[in-house]
Parts: sequence; C-alpha cells; structure tokens
Amino acid sequence: MSDEILKKLENLAKQILEAIRKGEPPKMEIPVRTLSNTIWDPKMKLLKLGPKTAIRDFFDLKESRKFMQTVLMLKGIIEARRAGIYPTIRNLYYYGKFTITYVDVRGRKLTEETWEDQRESNSVIQDIEVMTGLLREHMGIVHDAKGKMVGDIRVRSRGVTIDCSRMGEGAYSIPPNPDNLEIIDFNAKYVLVVEKDAIFNSLNMERFWEKEKCILITGKGQPDRSTRRMVRRLWEEYGLPVYVLTDSDPYGFYIYSVYKSGSISLSYESERLATPEARFIGVTPSDIYKYKLPKNAVIKAKDTDIKRAKELLKYPWFQSEAWQRELKLFLKKKEKAEIDALASRGFDFLSKKYIPEKIKKGEYIE
Amino acid sequence: MSDEILKKLENLAKQILEAIRKGEPPKMEIPVRTLSNTIWDPKMKLLKLGPKTAIRDFFDLKESRKFMQTVLMLKGIIEARRAGIYPTIRNLYYYGKFTITYVDVRGRKLTEETWEDQRESNSVIQDIEVMTGLLREHMGIVHDAKGKMVGDIRVRSRGVTIDCSRMGEGAYSIPPNPDNLEIIDFNAKYVLVVEKDAIFNSLNMERFWEKEKCILITGKGQPDRSTRRMVRRLWEEYGLPVYVLTDSDPYGFYIYSVYKSGSISLSYESERLATPEARFIGVTPSDIYKYKLPKNAVIKAKDTDIKRAKELLKYPWFQSEAWQRELKLFLKKKEKAEIDALASRGFDFLSKKYIPEKIKKGEYIE
Repeated sequence: MSDEILKKLENLAKQILEAIRKGEPPKMEIPVRTLSNTIWDPKMKLLKLGPKTAIRDFFDLKESRKFMQTVLMLKGIIEARRAGIYPTIRNLYYYGKFTITYVDVRGRKLTEETWEDQRESNSVIQDIEVMTGLLREHMGIVHDAKGKMVGDIRVRSRGVTIDCSRMGEGAYSIPPNPDNLEIIDFNAKYVLVVEKDAIFNSLNMERFWEKEKCILITGKGQPDRSTRRMVRRLWEEYGLPVYVLTDSDPYGFYIYSVYKSGSISLSYESERLATPEARFIGVTPSDIYKYKLPKNAVIKAKDTDIKRAKELLKYPWFQSEAWQRELKLFLKKKEKAEIDALASRGFDFLSKKYIPEKIKKGEYIE
Repeated sequence: MSDEILKKLENLAKQILEAIRKGEPPKMEIPVRTLSNTIWDPKMKLLKLGPKTAIRDFFDLKESRKFMQTVLMLKGIIEARRAGIYPTIRNLYYYGKFTITYVDVRGRKLTEETWEDQRESNSVIQDIEVMTGLLREHMGIVHDAKGKMVGDIRVRSRGVTIDCSRMGEGAYSIPPNPDNLEIIDFNAKYVLVVEKDAIFNSLNMERFWEKEKCILITGKGQPDRSTRRMVRRLWEEYGLPVYVLTDSDPYGFYIYSVYKSGSISLSYESERLATPEARFIGVTPSDIYKYKLPKNAVIKAKDTDIKRAKELLKYPWFQSEAWQRELKLFLKKKEKAEIDALASRGFDFLSKKYIPEKIKKGEYIE
C-alpha cells in the first residue's frame, strides 16, 4: 500500500522529468476544483468533481509560479514518504517556505517567495490530491484527529487488535488515516454520531453503546476528515445506519451536513469522506415543541443563526420535505436549543427515552 | 469510592436539614475563592486556597439567592449520583434553570430566575467542590475530554486493562476522570506533553514514544482538567519527569504554565491538577537563534503577544532566571515560531534531533 503510493507520487514527478529530457515543455493536467466544475450527483447524493481539467504549463507565465509550487510540494511529500516521516500540512508549508533570489533579463536582482501563506501551500496539496486520486492522508500527511470512538467493535492497526468495547471510561482516539484501519468485526445495530464531546462522555460513562448496541462516535463540533472517513466507512462497507445528534441550531444542522455531504469547496473529498445517507436524529426545531422544552431551556436565535438557516434552505442536501419544514419552523419561531437542554426533562431523558425511542420509531429526517 | 462521594454530598445536605429541624438558621461555611484568599506556596510551587471561609446564611438577604442556588445544585448532583447518571455542567445548568413565581409581602406577584447564565450555576458547583474537597469529576460531572495518550503504559478502567502501547496509529482518549484509572505499570523514562494534536499524531505515527521510551500526551492547545490531572498523576505518583513542548509564543508559554501551575482564578484545583515541576523543553525564544531558524520560518509578534508576555513576566511561576531571560528575549526580538517551523531544518529534525538531544543534555527551563 505504502509502496504503491510512493510509486504513484514518483510517477507524477517522472512524467515532468521525461518531458524536460525530451525537450518538451513540462506540463501537468489537473482536475479543476472550482465550483463551476462541481456537480451534484442525485443518485450518489453527493457533490462530485466534474470532468473539467486544466493544463498547468511551466512556460505559461501566469502558471509557472503555481507549477513550481506544485513540484516543490511533490518533492516534500516524496521525501517524507521515502524517510518514513509523517509531516503535518503546516510542516510542509515551512519545509517549502523560502525566498528565491534571481537576476532578471535586465540584470536586476529580484526575490520571490515560494509561497506567501499556508493557503498557497495547501492549495497545491489539493492539486496533488486530485491529480493522483489520493487523499493527503494516504500520502502520510497528518492533521488534527479529534474523533473518539467506543462500542462493541474491533479494529486492527499496525498489526495490533484494538477492542473499542474495552476502553473503560476512556475511548479510542480515531487515527489520522482510518483507511489504515482494518475493521475486524463488530456487534452493533447503528452508529450514533454526537456533536458534543461532553455528551459523548456522558453517554459513554452510562455505557449507552452497550445497552443500545451502537457504535458511539464524536467529532467534537465541526468534524475533521478522519472522523468523517471513519463514519463513512462504517456506513459504506457495512451498511450501518448512521444517526447524527447535534444542537438544534443552524450550526448543528451544518455539522450534520458536513457528515452527510461535505463542504462545497472541497467536493473532491466528499466521495471518500461523506455519508450521504446519514440521518439527523435531532435535536430538530419541532422537538422543542413536541417534547415541550420549558421556556428557560430555549434560546433566542441570533441574526447570524437566521442568516445561516436561510443559506441552509438552499443547499442541495437540505431539499427534502422534512428539512425544508424544520428549517422554516426554525425561521418562524427563531428559537434554538442545545442537546444538554433535554436535561430539563430529567437527566436520563436523552439516554433512556429521547434517543432509544426515536431510533425505534424511525423518527429521523434526511 | 462512589458510595463515599454520595455520602459526603448527602451529609452536606443533611447538615442544612438538621439546622432547619432544630429551628436554627440554615448556613453553609464555604472557603473563599477570591484572589485575596489565594496563597503562593513556594515549597509546593503552587497557588493554594488560603484559610479564609465565608458563611452563606439563608436569612441574610444578600446571601439567600446564592444559598438556594447551592442547595438546588447539590440536589441535582445527588440525584444524578443516585441514578448513576453522568451529567455535563451544561446539563446541570439546564436541570436547575427555571423561574420561581412568588408573592411578596405587599401582595405583588414577582418572578425570580434560579440562575441567569452558566456562570452562576458553575460558581455554585465550585462552592460545592471547595466545601466537600471533591473535584467535580469525583461527583460524576463530565466535561470535554480532549486529551490523548500513547506509550508503553497499562491502565485499568472499569475492570478492563488498557495497553496504551497497543493503539496502532490511534491513541487512548483520556477519560473525563483520570482518578478512576488505575495505573498498572509502565516502561518509560519521561512524559512528553505536546501542545498540538497534529504534532502528537506525527510523532505517534513515527512511534517516537517507543524509540524514546516516553509517554506521549496532548491536551490539544489549552488543556482540559482531565489531561492536566493525568499528567499530574504520572509526575506525583511515579516521579516521572514531565516535559512540555509548545510553540514559541506567549500563548504556548501560557499553556505550559497551565500544566505547571494552573490558573489564578481556580487555585483550589491546582493542588490536584497542576504539575509544579513540569519542565519547558521548548520551543524557547532563544532556540529560534540557537538553531538558526530561517527568517521565513519566524513570525513577527503581534501587540497581543507583547501584552501577554509582559503579563507572564509577573507570574510567580515565571520568576526563574531562565524564564525571565527568555521572556525578555522575546520582548526584545518580538519574534515567535511554531513547533511545525522546525521542519524548515528537515522533517525529522524535531523527532530525531531537537527533542532527544534536549532531553539528553537536560536543556529545559523551569
């Protein structure tokens, strides 16, 4: 696996080298990552990258800087892979950040920064991702891995078996690249993804996953790539239903949408990271009234919440009747509620009643 | 353990009840948590709560609201403990948040909120902590637990043994209450606490902890209580030296100081959570020049950095010669650098040279 990846990266570099040896202008063909080349696939329920590609030509003055940045980054990634080192994206930024001094045709001494900021270096990492079809995780680039998992599931990583039902009051911290995990077996009926770490801990302390036969995961707010990939794998490879539990506010709904469909700007990753059939179990705006949350447990929506909800209304993956109804109810009532607020109906209302009943009755929206 | 804690909490409530039964005014004696009752203990190298206590008297009009809040919170915590439920502090806020309607002596109908916001409910949790000498974790109150740990160490939680050297590319997510962990055995020479999650992952992927015989921990930026408690236990109970690695900027130095001494406002916890002998391994301001980081890898300090550094200069735990020298160097040069920037000296500079050499030569500051 690791050898194949190194080969793929080296081949990319070799193509450029061969063109130079043959006296041809060095070029790269890169799938276009702009919104105009992003396609909503209604069958896969995903935003995908379209077929458009662009040629990055070293001899095109507008492109030569980007061309050199791409080659510089490719060099860094290949070096790290050969040395068995796992750099962060910030490491790669620093690795390649230096000043080039040169003399122009008029004899003037000029300088040029390899890249100004991390946006530039990240952008060429993304180009290398779409060119090779590899995620940066496959290339051994690490990042924050906030995700935690617990449940009656066993995985294998670097030759050792990890039993996620034997973590005590702790949990298994999801590794940066879940594709290196082999899922050995599990005994669970569904995956419950919880927005908040504290709620995850509370449910884990009660051994909710054992009673409910589920795999409990949190991405701690806005999920990172590895948490999303882990959730995706459990759904895609084993058909486990995935339920997402967030606060009842547009930020929570957005977090659900990231698990479900990814972000618009990074559609090329969605095919690997998104779980298009992820179900929203709550807290829905209508739950606030259905479960008669006391006035004190409900929070008045802010202007930014209203603005965000209006944006969500237009997202392709919020076009279902149920979501349109819920979002419009939110916009009408202008009220939000946290998961934690369910405690106003009793401390065990969430774990003993709210979640189990919703799962049993199939009360979720998609 | 769990029974003892419930008993301690119930006894607090019983004392109040007995006073009422005897016809005496119900009162509570609470250690004062203000700065004026905070003492720097140079021997323990810790800020501690002083001997001052205050009487919270139900019949004192200024105190009665706080008195009732304390009893309300105590009720919630006891209920949760009896039911074996693990609420979050936010759950407890919602649990007790309601409006009391009453008629005053003039016959006017008035209302009173039990608490306005979480600051009020958190404050009485803290009062219950100092009254009982229990941390909120002991009372089964959970919170975010961001910490991760990996290394040749075995712990026991809820009867199962967890081997933190067998986590593959993942890690053991530190439980909300590390006091429930039994440390069985370990094979390590020191603890390395890394500020940044991505750097932790990078070092873990290289199995740095195996080569260096250390326990690797991250608290992901500003550490939470459970990460601090875990680090403290490894130092206090086993005498393991603790090294902290952060960015070379006042925010990083502050993170180090939280591990070392805790925060001024919560001095009563420091006795349980702080590691007064924690060593700062880097990145120090002088490292920037000693290791000749290229100009491009160094960042100009902002005004807020300068302001914060000036504050740090006055902290009791930054009075060592070495820290004063480093902080003054920072204020003179006005330059900062991230851990990630060491990659400009090569991807493996951090793991193969910087950390091992510093540990070997004892190059740290306290």
